Amino acid sequence: MKNPATLPRRHLLTGSAAALSALGLAAWTRGAHAQTEPAAAAKPLPAYAGWKNPGSLIVHSSSTLETRRGAFGTGVVTPSSQLYIRNNLPAPDAAIVADRDAWSVSIEGVKAPRALTLAELRTLGIETVTTVLQCSGNGRGFFPSKPSGTPWTVGAAGCVVWSGVPLRNVVAALGGLAGGAAYLTGTGGEKLPEGVDPLTVVVERSVPIKALDDAILAWEMNGEPMPLAHGGPLRLIVPGYQGVNNIKYVKRVVFGAEQSQARIMSHGYRMSPPGTKAGPDQPSVWEMTTKSWINGPLPEQGTLKAGLVQVHGVAFGGTRGIKGVDVSVDGGKTWQAAQLIGPDLGRFAWRQFVLPVRLAAGSHALLSRATDTAGNVQPEQREENLGGYNNTSWRDHGVTVVVA
Amino acid sequence: MKNPATLPRRHLLTGSAAALSALGLAAWTRGAHAQTEPAAAAKPLPAYAGWKNPGSLIVHSSSTLETRRGAFGTGVVTPSSQLYIRNNLPAPDAAIVADRDAWSVSIEGVKAPRALTLAELRTLGIETVTTVLQCSGNGRGFFPSKPSGTPWTVGAAGCVVWSGVPLRNVVAALGGLAGGAAYLTGTGGEKLPEGVDPLTVVVERSVPIKALDDAILAWEMNGEPMPLAHGGPLRLIVPGYQGVNNIKYVKRVVFGAEQSQARIMSHGYRMSPPGTKAGPDQPSVWEMTTKSWINGPLPEQGTLKAGLVQVHGVAFGGTRGIKGVDVSVDGGKTWQAAQLIGPDLGRFAWRQFVLPVRLAAGSHALLSRATDTAGNVQPEQREENLGGYNNTSWRDHGVTVVVA
Repeated sequence: MKNPATLPRRHLLTGSAAALSALGLAAWTRGAHAQTEPAAAAKPLPAYAGWKNPGSLIVHSSSTLETRRGAFGTGVVTPSSQLYIRNNLPAPDAAIVADRDAWSVSIEGVKAPRALTLAELRTLGIETVTTVLQCSGNGRGFFPSKPSGTPWTVGAAGCVVWSGVPLRNVVAALGGLAGGAAYLTGTGGEKLPEGVDPLTVVVERSVPIKALDDAILAWEMNGEPMPLAHGGPLRLIVPGYQGVNNIKYVKRVVFGAEQSQARIMSHGYRMSPPGTKAGPDQPSVWEMTTKSWINGPLPEQGTLKAGLVQVHGVAFGGTRGIKGVDVSVDGGKTWQAAQLIGPDLGRFAWRQFVLPVRLAAGSHALLSRATDTAGNVQPEQREENLGGYNNTSWRDHGVTVVVA
Repeated sequence: MKNPATLPRRHLLTGSAAALSALGLAAWTRGAHAQTEPAAAAKPLPAYAGWKNPGSLIVHSSSTLETRRGAFGTGVVTPSSQLYIRNNLPAPDAAIVADRDAWSVSIEGVKAPRALTLAELRTLGIETVTTVLQCSGNGRGFFPSKPSGTPWTVGAAGCVVWSGVPLRNVVAALGGLAGGAAYLTGTGGEKLPEGVDPLTVVVERSVPIKALDDAILAWEMNGEPMPLAHGGPLRLIVPGYQGVNNIKYVKRVVFGAEQSQARIMSHGYRMSPPGTKAGPDQPSVWEMTTKSWINGPLPEQGTLKAGLVQVHGVAFGGTRGIKGVDVSVDGGKTWQAAQLIGPDLGRFAWRQFVLPVRLAAGSHALLSRATDTAGNVQPEQREENLGGYNNTSWRDHGVTVVVA
């Protein structure tokens, strides 16, 4: 794929770590931008996300906000006010949400390619889908290797209701696929910095064409017009896929034979084993793997009294949905089947689980282990990789509580 | 049932319209408090609900906020920031949500009656349930008889995710029902005004004991600690029942043979035919009847272009869930089956529906008609009653749009 058509094709510097850092940009290539995280300084919310609930969020940087584990509660849908943010580029100017219906997205690789405004998209169909939205670096903070990037624990994730038009309706309205499409590529509409090669910074991601079955162009998030901070006025939602594939401010969708050559696709977000360099031959972070964690009780929720305790958390299985969750209260020696509770919002959403247990005085290591409907079991060990992606280790996600 | 145990039993004035009005209280007896609604004055949000989104709400009074029809969107769960409010008494002081776990509720009519704190309730179980929350006066604004009370059109309703402990778990933990219970009665913890008989003002409602199967004591709403404005720290949720039965700031739950003698139960919220006076022999507003309405396109959403249009809305069936929805674009002459879309959040939630239609230039009367899983069909005509309750007329809920 060539440079995004909307960008002037210029010979530009390849962004160095320093250049990117000076521009306020996070980088997606290991080592390009060694982030240092002050341990406990409570930073204020950035202006574009100033409407969020500061008490429920950890502000890592202006482009990385994490939901506190204790804020998840048991309500299944993550409120927008508590939802994490991870932006690869600064959010565009708020002017783009002043006239939402005027936003347009170019659709290419169909028989009758053209740009469609949001007003036109609204006439083509409506679907509502609930998905886990998760940064592929969620759980990076548990890697002893301390990969560069935000050290998320569990809070770079949420369960979100999206509403918009099925992308397949849009394809059908434009005559169907032109043919030969192996990938669906979305391009974000962020303003690109001057002085760097656009391919090194543009947020452009490709996913396998099968994702077209479920993808939507969404203009609502959790029942409200898509917030600017989350990609409004229009975001490409690829249910079951890691967060980065869900392109904010989507300006262009291409169906084609090749993956994007943008650096965020070719070298970023690859599962690179230790001792390698990230590159196109390694697996990209696409469908989410199966995972769960405990959201209560937590040590920070105060002293537990001996007796009945409700161990609860969330579990999700990418595109596959959850079959069940086992919980251990003895550090993984024995396991019991938890109950799945609450509404089932579909195979892309997370399920809540709960196990009532009686805990005696002392310290208890609580763990959860999910199984998806395809039979995949959440593993004990993380898969080591340079970027610290895709940590699904049940061992890493446990919590230890003390009962008085 | 006697006066709430927490209230001093005093001989007090029965509240007159003027006395109630002076206290800032809405009244639930027809004629007791003739509300006048300024047509278009945009009132500010009251302080206790100042965190809501003013653009999505109509402020009828400090205790009656309505969601704008155009704000519902298609996201299935109504965001808290847009959810309606109808308070029968002013919200208590915010001090009650400063230490949520200290809130206590007295459980009576069980074998081992006692008060339980919210901290204790949290150990007894967790359930998450999605329900339509609707004021029984929703749709009152369509009654040509102009009953007293807020002239809600469609926005005194929302679809809300609640999380808390099943009330049946609490009963089981207290030894089970004492026996002879025909009703489940909840009492609100609002501060009662001086100078009026508590029974004339206390928010105390009884529902048939069968509601115990589904009722929860909820401490979360839409994934956040229950807001004060919506009954936090603890609210009794009776899935499928009209809003008034979902007691805010619940202080007391009684299982007994008789209904509450509070006026809001004995004379308020009764389906009183024209020419009668409201009283205990008339049906109370309990389970919601089956209803739907269209949320788009709406005249206020701007000019429609001829061609494809997505007619969408919501439908719910009280405790029974929705089987299907028919849509008419010719004022009820012909009907087509709409598609149900989005996740099915269970039989107490609403479903979204959509029908793609091609509309030519001109005026079009759009209507929707729901059928629940028990076969009940939303009626054409409202049931006339003094209070303007329970308007489910499909004729009343239609919208007319003009295509250019």
